[in-house]
Amino acid sequence: MKRVYLDNGNTTPLHPDALSAMLPFLSEHFGNPASIHAFGEEPRAAMNKAREQVAGLIGGDKDGIIFTSCGTESNNNAVKGVAAATKKKGNHIIASAIEHFSVLYSCKYLEKQGYEVTYLPVDGDGLVNPDDVKAAIKKETVLVTVMHANGEMGAIQPVTEIGKITREAGVAFHVDAVASAGNIPIDAEAMNIDLLSLAGNMFYGPKGAAALYVRKGTRVMPIFDGGVQEGGRRAGTENLAGIVGMGKAAELAVAEMPERTPRVTAMRDRLVAGLRDKIQYARYNGHPTKRLPGNLSISMEYIEGESMLLFLNMQGVAASSGSACTSRALKASHVLTSMGVPVEVTHGSLLMTVGRDNTDEEIDYVLEILPPIVQRLRDMSPLYEDMVVKKKG
Amino acid sequence: MKRVYLDNGNTTPLHPDALSAMLPFLSEHFGNPASIHAFGEEPRAAMNKAREQVAGLIGGDKDGIIFTSCGTESNNNAVKGVAAATKKKGNHIIASAIEHFSVLYSCKYLEKQGYEVTYLPVDGDGLVNPDDVKAAIKKETVLVTVMHANGEMGAIQPVTEIGKITREAGVAFHVDAVASAGNIPIDAEAMNIDLLSLAGNMFYGPKGAAALYVRKGTRVMPIFDGGVQEGGRRAGTENLAGIVGMGKAAELAVAEMPERTPRVTAMRDRLVAGLRDKIQYARYNGHPTKRLPGNLSISMEYIEGESMLLFLNMQGVAASSGSACTSRALKASHVLTSMGVPVEVTHGSLLMTVGRDNTDEEIDYVLEILPPIVQRLRDMSPLYEDMVVKKKG
Repeated sequence: MKRVYLDNGNTTPLHPDALSAMLPFLSEHFGNPASIHAFGEEPRAAMNKAREQVAGLIGGDKDGIIFTSCGTESNNNAVKGVAAATKKKGNHIIASAIEHFSVLYSCKYLEKQGYEVTYLPVDGDGLVNPDDVKAAIKKETVLVTVMHANGEMGAIQPVTEIGKITREAGVAFHVDAVASAGNIPIDAEAMNIDLLSLAGNMFYGPKGAAALYVRKGTRVMPIFDGGVQEGGRRAGTENLAGIVGMGKAAELAVAEMPERTPRVTAMRDRLVAGLRDKIQYARYNGHPTKRLPGNLSISMEYIEGESMLLFLNMQGVAASSGSACTSRALKASHVLTSMGVPVEVTHGSLLMTVGRDNTDEEIDYVLEILPPIVQRLRDMSPLYEDMVVKKKG
Repeated sequence: MKRVYLDNGNTTPLHPDALSAMLPFLSEHFGNPASIHAFGEEPRAAMNKAREQVAGLIGGDKDGIIFTSCGTESNNNAVKGVAAATKKKGNHIIASAIEHFSVLYSCKYLEKQGYEVTYLPVDGDGLVNPDDVKAAIKKETVLVTVMHANGEMGAIQPVTEIGKITREAGVAFHVDAVASAGNIPIDAEAMNIDLLSLAGNMFYGPKGAAALYVRKGTRVMPIFDGGVQEGGRRAGTENLAGIVGMGKAAELAVAEMPERTPRVTAMRDRLVAGLRDKIQYARYNGHPTKRLPGNLSISMEYIEGESMLLFLNMQGVAASSGSACTSRALKASHVLTSMGVPVEVTHGSLLMTVGRDNTDEEIDYVLEILPPIVQRLRDMSPLYEDMVVKKKG
């Protein structure tokens, strides 16, 4: 059977060159980078190189890169770590309503500790208004956290505008760039970003390697207590091979982005155009142009997204209903409801994310099989029937 | 040049069979185990298998295995997580004085939050007295944390005896088994252990994959907020390939331990015997028989351990001065000072850990080169000269 992977926003295949870079560190160069003997030399040099490669991807200083185990750890460290480090300054945090759960639930955790959190709304296209950030800042504000791009519906936030405001106000600015890093350009320094989260498996690196970038001078406490790894900022033996693979993937992303982006965007647009043509009563979520290259989020009225996923899966197509971190919990998406998508419509949501390994042929295959699936499910839906009758009526 | 790795207590080489098990998950089976489509199937099955393999290594229920990124994360999660979950019950914790920094500093962190921590002493052999545990428990006690074996000087704690006491008292018992798991038998259920930390890279698995075992009914809060991975107990995309590798390494450890242990012990004993013969004024740390098979900790009087390591390194031998997490911080070891080793003697400490890949020939090489290094350093030492003069005088 044909197998088409359109879930690159969930996790990407490992780039073969990233795997090649990793292999020596899973065999002869097995040493601990923390050790002072010869077996630590290659690992230490490799960690240093990976730090440069990752810093190069996001326009930050390599000494600001802290290696972590996943985007969730980076986000927890950023939100809770800044709060812990700036307790004396204040207890107010500003977050967008569409942040990833690892940011939102870190905020909820802090609310229980006595913090006040302002959740900023987004417009119908999924965008935060920088004026709202400005208006929400008060003297107790210690952190503004707004994601770069939303993995669930693709919208790219006005991070540069927000960064100007936070820098001027002297408030730390955290950007969850897990969905965007390696997929669209980032310049942390130019964007006035103080903390930035990224994860290797979102740009063809391995799972288990991620990073938190912390701009020099930004105060953040570690979330693990223990040893002195990562300059005392992240205790624990590092995932050496994973970090090397992420570094290589970062370097490849910088090199290949000029070619990848238009190719992936064209495939996504081909998919959108085809579906618009063939499927009625569908809402395309997220800003039409300010969006991640491969991301396509559609909410189909009158059907259940889960059923759509199962039928697609039966025909070899892997897609998603939203964030991987919630795909097994059948709740309405907080991202889509924040954008004003009615709850019943969010249930018919389908997220397809095109990646560098996809082909036009695969897109055409999806265009061939998806519309009949939607029609079949609608034919089974009493809601759809009612609506058709009403319209005809 | 000859290269001899005697730092297996720091990190072990990856077992070739563990690497083979990992490779498919770094290529075709790249899917996210959390996804519901076909690309998630193999990863999900592999995670399940790894969970069984790791549970099999420690005699626990597979549903109690939470995959983490490192031993430090597991230890932080255990100590802080139990404290957070049992706030209403009490604020007292009991820890041995020789715990790893990830446990000790988690305790220090909790002290700042208003917890009281009792640090139990150890005897000259490095052992905790179970009676001390019993005497320290009070009604506010929510956690006893005592490591299984100390990676720095090898002593194996009376965990079974302590487990009886904690179970009877109804207090959660955490065992840091990072240095021991995969190297000596563990039976969490028989030992009345409620929480247990282990790390794959300590038993020929990859770095970046570790676990926290939590016995059914034990209350522990997650340290990451976010998604629903690991049954809601550890948010974040899992290090799939690393977990698979750790699982395979756990299975191999169970299968190979009957052969590995006597072989590794014999090499360690050969090393001890040879050094005892050739080097005077040396203290062998840790219990003589209740100890990790490969572990050899010697404190040489009148010299600096760092110099010894550098000279050994120049002749191709990798050893350590203590915990990898502190090897770049030149402090007296809290483990050795807790055992009554005078501070100036701890500075001459050398940790050599024999592993499954070592050979008798390598041991003989170390026996050939180490004594002259020690003599050379002592000849340069004014303290040694004074002592020799005094004895002769």
